[in-house]
Amino acid sequence: MFFHYKGLQFEAKPDKPDPVLAKHLQELLGGAVGEMTVAMQYLFQGWNCRVPGKYKDLILDTATEELAHVEMIATMIARLLEGAPEDAYVEAAKDPMTAAILGGTNPQHKIVTGLGPALADSAGEAWSGKYIIASGNLFADFSLNAAVEMQGRLQATRVFNMTDDPGVREMLKFNIARDTMHQNQWLAACEELKSDGLETLPSPSAFPESDQNNEYAYTLFNFSEGSQSSEGRWASGPTPDGKGTFNYVDNPQPMAPEPVLPPAPPQYYGTPSTGGGIVQKVKDILT
Amino acid sequence: MFFHYKGLQFEAKPDKPDPVLAKHLQELLGGAVGEMTVAMQYLFQGWNCRVPGKYKDLILDTATEELAHVEMIATMIARLLEGAPEDAYVEAAKDPMTAAILGGTNPQHKIVTGLGPALADSAGEAWSGKYIIASGNLFADFSLNAAVEMQGRLQATRVFNMTDDPGVREMLKFNIARDTMHQNQWLAACEELKSDGLETLPSPSAFPESDQNNEYAYTLFNFSEGSQSSEGRWASGPTPDGKGTFNYVDNPQPMAPEPVLPPAPPQYYGTPSTGGGIVQKVKDILT
Amino acid sequence: MFFHYKGLQFEAKPDKPDPVLAKHLQELLGGAVGEMTVAMQYLFQGWNCRVPGKYKDLILDTATEELAHVEMIATMIARLLEGAPEDAYVEAAKDPMTAAILGGTNPQHKIVTGLGPALADSAGEAWSGKYIIASGNLFADFSLNAAVEMQGRLQATRVFNMTDDPGVREMLKFNIARDTMHQNQWLAACEELKSDGLETLPSPSAFPESDQNNEYAYTLFNFSEGSQSSEGRWASGPTPDGKGTFNYVDNPQPMAPEPVLPPAPPQYYGTPSTGGGIVQKVKDILT
Amino acid sequence: MFFHYKGLQFEAKPDKPDPVLAKHLQELLGGAVGEMTVAMQYLFQGWNCRVPGKYKDLILDTATEELAHVEMIATMIARLLEGAPEDAYVEAAKDPMTAAILGGTNPQHKIVTGLGPALADSAGEAWSGKYIIASGNLFADFSLNAAVEMQGRLQATRVFNMTDDPGVREMLKFNIARDTMHQNQWLAACEELKSDGLETLPSPSAFPESDQNNEYAYTLFNFSEGSQSSEGRWASGPTPDGKGTFNYVDNPQPMAPEPVLPPAPPQYYGTPSTGGGIVQKVKDILT
Amino acid sequence: MFFHYKGLQFEAKPDKPDPVLAKHLQELLGGAVGEMTVAMQYLFQGWNCRVPGKYKDLILDTATEELAHVEMIATMIARLLEGAPEDAYVEAAKDPMTAAILGGTNPQHKIVTGLGPALADSAGEAWSGKYIIASGNLFADFSLNAAVEMQGRLQATRVFNMTDDPGVREMLKFNIARDTMHQNQWLAACEELKSDGLETLPSPSAFPESDQNNEYAYTLFNFSEGSQSSEGRWASGPTPDGKGTFNYVDNPQPMAPEPVLPPAPPQYYGTPSTGGGIVQKVKDILT
Amino acid sequence: MFFHYKGLQFEAKPDKPDPVLAKHLQELLGGAVGEMTVAMQYLFQGWNCRVPGKYKDLILDTATEELAHVEMIATMIARLLEGAPEDAYVEAAKDPMTAAILGGTNPQHKIVTGLGPALADSAGEAWSGKYIIASGNLFADFSLNAAVEMQGRLQATRVFNMTDDPGVREMLKFNIARDTMHQNQWLAACEELKSDGLETLPSPSAFPESDQNNEYAYTLFNFSEGSQSSEGRWASGPTPDGKGTFNYVDNPQPMAPEPVLPPAPPQYYGTPSTGGGIVQKVKDILT
Repeated sequence: MFFHYKGLQFEAKPDKPDPVLAKHLQELLGGAVGEMTVAMQYLFQGWNCRVPGKYKDLILDTATEELAHVEMIATMIARLLEGAPEDAYVEAAKDPMTAAILGGTNPQHKIVTGLGPALADSAGEAWSGKYIIASGNLFADFSLNAAVEMQGRLQATRVFNMTDDPGVREMLKFNIARDTMHQNQWLAACEELKSDGLETLPSPSAFPESDQNNEYAYTLFNFSEGSQSSEGRWASGPTPDGKGTFNYVDNPQPMAPEPVLPPAPPQYYGTPSTGGGIVQKVKDILT
Repeated sequence: MFFHYKGLQFEAKPDKPDPVLAKHLQELLGGAVGEMTVAMQYLFQGWNCRVPGKYKDLILDTATEELAHVEMIATMIARLLEGAPEDAYVEAAKDPMTAAILGGTNPQHKIVTGLGPALADSAGEAWSGKYIIASGNLFADFSLNAAVEMQGRLQATRVFNMTDDPGVREMLKFNIARDTMHQNQWLAACEELKSDGLETLPSPSAFPESDQNNEYAYTLFNFSEGSQSSEGRWASGPTPDGKGTFNYVDNPQPMAPEPVLPPAPPQYYGTPSTGGGIVQKVKDILT
Repeated sequence: MFFHYKGLQFEAKPDKPDPVLAKHLQELLGGAVGEMTVAMQYLFQGWNCRVPGKYKDLILDTATEELAHVEMIATMIARLLEGAPEDAYVEAAKDPMTAAILGGTNPQHKIVTGLGPALADSAGEAWSGKYIIASGNLFADFSLNAAVEMQGRLQATRVFNMTDDPGVREMLKFNIARDTMHQNQWLAACEELKSDGLETLPSPSAFPESDQNNEYAYTLFNFSEGSQSSEGRWASGPTPDGKGTFNYVDNPQPMAPEPVLPPAPPQYYGTPSTGGGIVQKVKDILT
Repeated sequence: MFFHYKGLQFEAKPDKPDPVLAKHLQELLGGAVGEMTVAMQYLFQGWNCRVPGKYKDLILDTATEELAHVEMIATMIARLLEGAPEDAYVEAAKDPMTAAILGGTNPQHKIVTGLGPALADSAGEAWSGKYIIASGNLFADFSLNAAVEMQGRLQATRVFNMTDDPGVREMLKFNIARDTMHQNQWLAACEELKSDGLETLPSPSAFPESDQNNEYAYTLFNFSEGSQSSEGRWASGPTPDGKGTFNYVDNPQPMAPEPVLPPAPPQYYGTPSTGGGIVQKVKDILT
Repeated sequence: MFFHYKGLQFEAKPDKPDPVLAKHLQELLGGAVGEMTVAMQYLFQGWNCRVPGKYKDLILDTATEELAHVEMIATMIARLLEGAPEDAYVEAAKDPMTAAILGGTNPQHKIVTGLGPALADSAGEAWSGKYIIASGNLFADFSLNAAVEMQGRLQATRVFNMTDDPGVREMLKFNIARDTMHQNQWLAACEELKSDGLETLPSPSAFPESDQNNEYAYTLFNFSEGSQSSEGRWASGPTPDGKGTFNYVDNPQPMAPEPVLPPAPPQYYGTPSTGGGIVQKVKDILT
Repeated sequence: MFFHYKGLQFEAKPDKPDPVLAKHLQELLGGAVGEMTVAMQYLFQGWNCRVPGKYKDLILDTATEELAHVEMIATMIARLLEGAPEDAYVEAAKDPMTAAILGGTNPQHKIVTGLGPALADSAGEAWSGKYIIASGNLFADFSLNAAVEMQGRLQATRVFNMTDDPGVREMLKFNIARDTMHQNQWLAACEELKSDGLETLPSPSAFPESDQNNEYAYTLFNFSEGSQSSEGRWASGPTPDGKGTFNYVDNPQPMAPEPVLPPAPPQYYGTPSTGGGIVQKVKDILT
């Protein structure tokens, strides 16, 4: 159950309106790795968490914070959309420059939301529940969380460089700092899972090694021209999971022959291998 | 440019048809973390790679292998769909058991693909280009790749436990082994980026620390009831990026007041704060 | 069965081309509450209507009219796209102003439809069958129809204020008037359902009151800081359905303890609650 | 900013597992009018609300409660998925009945979430940000909210009739009661907007009547065979908005001639109206 | 503008209910090549047609008929859903066979539409505006229409073989016949375009041959192991467009060197080619 | 199994950066008929091909080439995005022209991919697995392939006319030539299927004529005002499949009465046909 405070976790107030920046900021709200994604990913991981205690609490702490971040970005977008000249569109018909600027904004910010945020990314594509993963395996999920926070921080830093509005930058400095924390915390949580003896690499670690084809578990196949890939530490030496040694296959060969599929049964009307008589055959079978 | 070999990288032949399992296997082909996702994610990372040499070669080696995995799962699905009794549906009208089994299969395997694989997941949702990320930052991307391989391996092990068909299990043992390798290789590649001095934590590492609000970069806010989250190593001690010390805020407070948004300009017909006269006001402005 | 007249229900002819406006008008055609949505929502409500007579006839009258509105907006968009300077793009490479205007248009209007309308919204997102609802309960559906007509009229008035093209405004004046009618007619139809004794509030009205937890059927829970919400008529006095009295709970408490979920069976490789022995346990069970 | 309580708003505990019901319950979580939709619709309406005070507080009270409902349904689904026989799939290969039951469950509940809820509907389609509307016009939005609560209550009552599990029914009785409250509160809020003089019918009410084509604002066009639609109160008498009188047009005629579109400029390679010479003409223009 | 007749174009009445078949029939209604797709594809082609006369009339004749087909399938689905035992779900909890059959039906047919059709395919995925193409080039569009009618007829014949319900089969016999007509008519229309001198192969035919790299316009590159593809008539002899001669390249080589991309500007935080100093460099540039 | 060459099939190098053109080129990469669609459509047709030999080899030759085309367009987009002024966004805040140009580019090219290609179309909508069809019937699939190549070539010629960059045009001349070849080859393959006696018109040709309602298999129904459609060769004379004669029905009539659907069972809470007593009736049945 949740409670909502009226205040924002951190200030979200631009120095001046900027509808083009509002369009760009939608990526941090409703993009594939935006605040909505991490909020929902963590909530569903929390609600799907079957390990009571510190792990579940950590997940729900962070999930709840991310809801506040969705709120901050949403508020910032609403404020960036304010203050458009009241008759901008009518003027735009006469003034190509105004037309051009308006053309670069998100039409739905005017027509659909009336100067409010949308639950969509910077290209206007709606946020999707497919962006989140909550697998029930904490090591796999925490590793993904750390990676998503990296992508999210990367995007925030790019938007940071697209504006010199002090108010927007102040908020982004906070968001970028939180992304730093969250990268660190999820990686620390992976370490904790290891030291608690619950999970380790490769994930899932409970799958019996005997059911894995170990001959191919530490091999780099060179499927692209050139062998520069043999020069990295992924091509020789011990593997990060501590269970094997990397090896390199320079010229990989198919291990199975070309698959030859038999014809489909006639009622599917796939193309037969040989001509003639198919109509009669279908008739015979189906009638 | 690519070349196609007729043989499969590894055998993909079930011992007997099983259309329900074919439906489940679609997750490994066209799910959010399935073979199609990793194939395309790595291809686009390779084509977007601005660091020539070993990293780019590693990415394209793996991308090209993943195309072969898409082919293997696709072939396995086609074979699992074969051999349905030729008049199963007509019989099903009479035999509730046959009806029930058919009801549990993917209708599109019959109607749309005629016993072939679909580019969709196990719930029938089409694969989406939104599943892939290629950011141009190798550390962020490799971390994500490792995490996606964990989720993919997890799903493959779950499907492994859903069948005792020796042919399907043989293929999955190979796929699971390759997922082990790919987890290891992407983590090793992150290490290589660090030792080459190119990238490190937090990602992106080139963003100036002075532009991050450091006060909040290593803080865990306790936004969920209870303080069990203070017990993990993410709440105190040095952070994994080696740049800070975790701290814990037990009772976080809003740092900004409630946002109060002014009315939108009248031409958007948002609800005004006070009643009366709005029609006239709009008339005055717009006419 | 349908018949198509060549004439339009109402004129749809702009005074001059305007490709940026064409992009905006797409919202009224293929947006979530655009003409396509109401046309299809009403058609499916009509085809799913199990009450013969005046209600079904009303639904199909309106559905069929909305198809004519889709046609009108589609025609208007095609005409707004005409007349672009023939070598605009090549010129644009030299003239930044032309480039800027072209950049604000919908690329698919040129590349995909060749100056025709798309079945998409103003952000270019394709129309989706998920936008429509036809539940079989007429009160619930008519209430939704009235609400969607309000959103649709709101969007049309916003676009009206984005242009001073007399031809476009003339068409929109007609569309806005029809949205007025449709709001009125669906609300009148809800009244008719009540006076015919078929449905009433709360919807669905046939659900036995004894199966509803009446203790919580008229309570406003104050889950957000401050108690300004207690000041409206939704917090006390009789409820619109005439069946209860609003009451206000200022400080709502959880009514159930924290859910503690047991571990998942081992074959799903969820994280166990306690470390050790899991590989062996899985082996024991599965082999 | 939000705070999360560990307890649930109301108990969400089934008497026994039922994975088929878990699949059906997904509709109430992630369907087009499920709990996720109302939670996000209200949050975005709150964050886009430009009228401080009781209205905004009401919106955010309800939004925050709906998050708790998402949590309840998510928890219920997780519990309904528990307790599957540990080797069900392997057994299913031998026992067609087990196979049939498993075939009727959601494959992603096993493969993707490992017995947890998905952010998707009962057909497995992911939740979409397109489901929500927050227009900035409170009357239009509150009307929509009431209508969505009707659809949501309707779906909950249908699921209620699909099970006799006492635990599930107990939770649904609570959800259905809350849907009753929310229908009432949003309709009461529409009344409050009227009595506060802020908004009324038709929505948006601030659009100048002089810009609406009033000749067609209260007319029912009979576009479907038969004239049963003339028998309802939507065809004559005063309109609900109190501004007009319904009238009925039995045999509506097109008001504009067939649109005849001129050829597109040659660089789009649309089909010309007359044959011959087009290649040369394009060459002349473009080179 | 349209008019709706109450009668169906052709009878759509099953002999008995069959909810599993109803789920399968959704493919013919809302699948990628179902009736909704052809109805909308032809409507938009008609509304985008810039050649007045026989072609536009043909398109709109067919578009309008397809709306009647959507209506027929929708009606058939509604009727197939009728007559389920009234307490089927509650019984299903006790009777695994009933549970299994119900599990194979579309949950949304019960929960969302209340025994009505959905605008979705047989896997429950919503119909999308992306399925339609209306390019403005009639030859390209008519060729696509013929091809889509082939896929549609193929799917209808497959569903035909899934049932022996005489009523369903009677309707499908009609639909399959209409698909035969539509294949023929669109191919005849392509011939007509040729004989009218408006369009021909390759499409678009107005593109100047001098702007095509003719050296590669009739070459088959052998990119897959083996050279069986050289045995068909696509590898030698005159081409169908009458403008060239097929030739075969057995061992195609890259014609351009490996692309080496320079580093992105520092404000995007892509991985640099060489380590060191990047933070300082960014600082220098951006401050 | 695949192998990747480092060189490109053909050069993909613009003379100068152009981020607006990069946005447009996305249509040829990730649009509904772009290179990704044909690559995946052909791969899945190949993997679903149950006719070994020349047909399967042709499909996989072409599929593999299309992967190289995805690579070429992806590379071109990456290069078109290079060279933006390093502080463009910050400058844009001061210079409206720069702002306008930036507004016309794809925001995700900066924020998400860091100057790399996206797997999306020119409107930013992600590529979808729904775009591909692989039915198992080669005639239906080859016809569709030819049609998709026509649409793809049409789009490429339109983009060709949007730029005069010599490098971009050089690549497009190659792509357009390949589209010419692919149109020809798929049409030739349809001829080959006929001459091999495997398939012919109407597709699928193995469906027994006796199961088709032949009375309506060659009839054009005039459902749109006017009878210009009677003037084409689709209205009289022999049909292209050689099996019938076109005929024209000027005034088509419904062949079935209005469908009257009975009420749904009460547990779905559809609106009943007559008022009164429904609550009691539901109670009686369900309790």
